[in-house]
Amino acid sequence: MRKDSLPAAKGLERLIEALRVLPGVGPKAAQRMAYHLLQHDRSGAEELSQSLASALATVRRCTQCNNFSEDEVCALCRSPRRDAALLCVVETPADLSVVEQTLSYTGLYFVLLGRLSPLDGVGPRDIGLDRLVARVSDGKVEEVILATNLTNEGEATAHYIAEMLRARGIRASRIARGVPLGGELEYVDIGTVSQALLDRRGL
Amino acid sequence: MRKDSLPAAKGLERLIEALRVLPGVGPKAAQRMAYHLLQHDRSGAEELSQSLASALATVRRCTQCNNFSEDEVCALCRSPRRDAALLCVVETPADLSVVEQTLSYTGLYFVLLGRLSPLDGVGPRDIGLDRLVARVSDGKVEEVILATNLTNEGEATAHYIAEMLRARGIRASRIARGVPLGGELEYVDIGTVSQALLDRRGL
Repeated sequence: MRKDSLPAAKGLERLIEALRVLPGVGPKAAQRMAYHLLQHDRSGAEELSQSLASALATVRRCTQCNNFSEDEVCALCRSPRRDAALLCVVETPADLSVVEQTLSYTGLYFVLLGRLSPLDGVGPRDIGLDRLVARVSDGKVEEVILATNLTNEGEATAHYIAEMLRARGIRASRIARGVPLGGELEYVDIGTVSQALLDRRGL
Repeated sequence: MRKDSLPAAKGLERLIEALRVLPGVGPKAAQRMAYHLLQHDRSGAEELSQSLASALATVRRCTQCNNFSEDEVCALCRSPRRDAALLCVVETPADLSVVEQTLSYTGLYFVLLGRLSPLDGVGPRDIGLDRLVARVSDGKVEEVILATNLTNEGEATAHYIAEMLRARGIRASRIARGVPLGGELEYVDIGTVSQALLDRRGL
């Protein structure tokens, strides 16, 4: 008893398909989002459409630190109140935002374009290490803090950069590995506990 | 040691805020989505912006069944191959799409604008029951299948509509309650099993 296939609105189909570019959004969630917007929040959808277009038109990368910015050099890099002797290297703009939220870092940043991943063909130039070298050669940077993730690839990237900087006589440091605040030894992985023991500090 | 607050790109902030209109998207997910789009999928973001604008401009409600449509009367309502004697009432366009996917229904539809919810001040007119009455008075509809959800509000809505139709001499039916396909009695709630016993069918 097959009958007409559902002749759905084409604009709706296109919207559902387009929503799937969002990370973590599958076909079911995309459909739910599209229906929600068209049924209950048309003004929100309008604002979303416009803010996407506007962000695409205005948001680019800071030529100095690679972070998102609407200016050629971002406000953070231009700020006279930041310590130009310290440079923190992170993998992504999201990581930069996390470090900023600690309110405990006063230096400048350099955002990599990802992390080294030889298996995926991602080499030093692909993540902008040539530009990092140029950046640290300004005569002001005294220490580079490597705040890449504590994953295998993040660690490899940090080591690679440390070697590179050492060859140029610039001091490199790595964020501390250890048991997270509130962490209970019983539930923390062995590698982390082992590292926390090795890196213990005098009291 | 407080320093400059992060002077993030305004267009980026606006986009993050706008993404929160999507159901189930909190501040963290919105940030992740915005960063992902700007960093890795600008063409996808472009298409999303345009398809939102285009859907808002072209997708409206079918004047006959309330489903999303780009025409005044949708292709489904216009189809000569659908059985005009059967009318299936659902709560949302998403529910209509589910019934269509069964490929086992050949009649027409009427999409309510929600469900009755006296506590939230949602009455019969708010969900378009006046228009449903007008719709079933076309002399063609012989049976109205009530496919609202099997929740308290969906049940109440179904009963209200059934009474309303009875007063006008139109036959109403309700989708079956019972153990879902693949369901194991041990894991199905008692109310469902009880209903499945009451509604048992001869073999």
